[in-house]
Amino acid sequence: MEKPQAVLFDAYGTLFDVYSVGLLAEQLFPGRGQALGVLWRDKQIEYTRLVTTSNHGAHYQPFWALTRAALAYAIKKIAPPGASAQAIATFNGQVDQLMNQYRHLSAFPENKAVLKALKARGIATGILSNGDPEMLGIAVRSAGMEGLLDHVISVDAVHKYKTHPEAYALGEQATGLEAANILFVSSNSWDALGATWYGYQTLWVNRYQLPFEELGTPPTRTGASLRDVLSFFEA
Amino acid sequence: MEKPQAVLFDAYGTLFDVYSVGLLAEQLFPGRGQALGVLWRDKQIEYTRLVTTSNHGAHYQPFWALTRAALAYAIKKIAPPGASAQAIATFNGQVDQLMNQYRHLSAFPENKAVLKALKARGIATGILSNGDPEMLGIAVRSAGMEGLLDHVISVDAVHKYKTHPEAYALGEQATGLEAANILFVSSNSWDALGATWYGYQTLWVNRYQLPFEELGTPPTRTGASLRDVLSFFEA
Repeated sequence: MEKPQAVLFDAYGTLFDVYSVGLLAEQLFPGRGQALGVLWRDKQIEYTRLVTTSNHGAHYQPFWALTRAALAYAIKKIAPPGASAQAIATFNGQVDQLMNQYRHLSAFPENKAVLKALKARGIATGILSNGDPEMLGIAVRSAGMEGLLDHVISVDAVHKYKTHPEAYALGEQATGLEAANILFVSSNSWDALGATWYGYQTLWVNRYQLPFEELGTPPTRTGASLRDVLSFFEA
Repeated sequence: MEKPQAVLFDAYGTLFDVYSVGLLAEQLFPGRGQALGVLWRDKQIEYTRLVTTSNHGAHYQPFWALTRAALAYAIKKIAPPGASAQAIATFNGQVDQLMNQYRHLSAFPENKAVLKALKARGIATGILSNGDPEMLGIAVRSAGMEGLLDHVISVDAVHKYKTHPEAYALGEQATGLEAANILFVSSNSWDALGATWYGYQTLWVNRYQLPFEELGTPPTRTGASLRDVLSFFEA
């Protein structure tokens, strides 16, 4: 396999820690903050799939709107049955607080060193994300990554979320390279699988010691942090 | 809205209780049977979406294969870290036992009375399911429903799972009716949503007191059991 000429990163879960909202979630919902975070994330991903598949994408909504909808669902699901009028009145406030936190997710600590090492080798870098352009812009600036990324690609351009092939095709179009010459990096196993199926070289960053998807196709490599990206460029 | 001329039912979760594997799961994995059942079901649905969306369905596998893959994933995920060689050796046996149970899921108790009431009114009835034809045939026979269903429709005919429009179109093709004149019934809120978007009249059977999907479109009606189907035919 040829050494990749560019590296594209998934954003949410890979560069930015989607569970870094957990502390605030725990303050708002004592004892249920972690469950809320997981439910929110799962529902967010589910919504990207529902709007992509149904009626060929006719029900597309930007990632910010789907993230908010997923949070509203998650709070309703974990709310105790027969919640009081007061509890319902605080609902919108909780959504607003958590969405504001989501806008400023923590970046994983090793990110910038890895991006700098890639730039030093002359490798093109970028993000290929379900996030909409405004969300991605804020997240990249908050993390101080502006100068380290050649491409910030949002699936919003095609109104189809990953793992739709039109979403993955954006990486080839932005870099001018074929997928086989690009390394795609994701901590989300479904995303690493979809990118592998599409034709990318892939690194699955298995941050939480999970099994890989059992669908018969492994990623090119599996690592434990973004630092494992550099293994693709060693002699 | 016109009274529907046919009623199509989702199968898994709607006619057949996907959580009826719970007792065996609890025997095999004490204290974690329920968690395994939920994880299995969620992963099964996730896999239908991944293979439908990725590369336009090129990675399609029948529902039985995806159900088995989802179970393998779920067992690996709940297995204690550093499982012993013996634990790994029993793994395939556990998968086989649970898959055999899945083949003979319990039917919800009100099903047959509702189907009989529809037949008595001359309404066409059927199943429109992600299940593959063999699974559906066994489940329908086990439940004694053969004479009560005019159509048993599997998405396997198009190699696209719900909520893909080609899957929902099969209901129109089998009945010769437009979706607007068909009632589609599902306990799965994502399926009730997808069918509503497609154009069916819909009943969401909310068996577990869950919130509906927060994507801006409600089902035509919400009920608590299959008996609520009959409300569509009252004067």
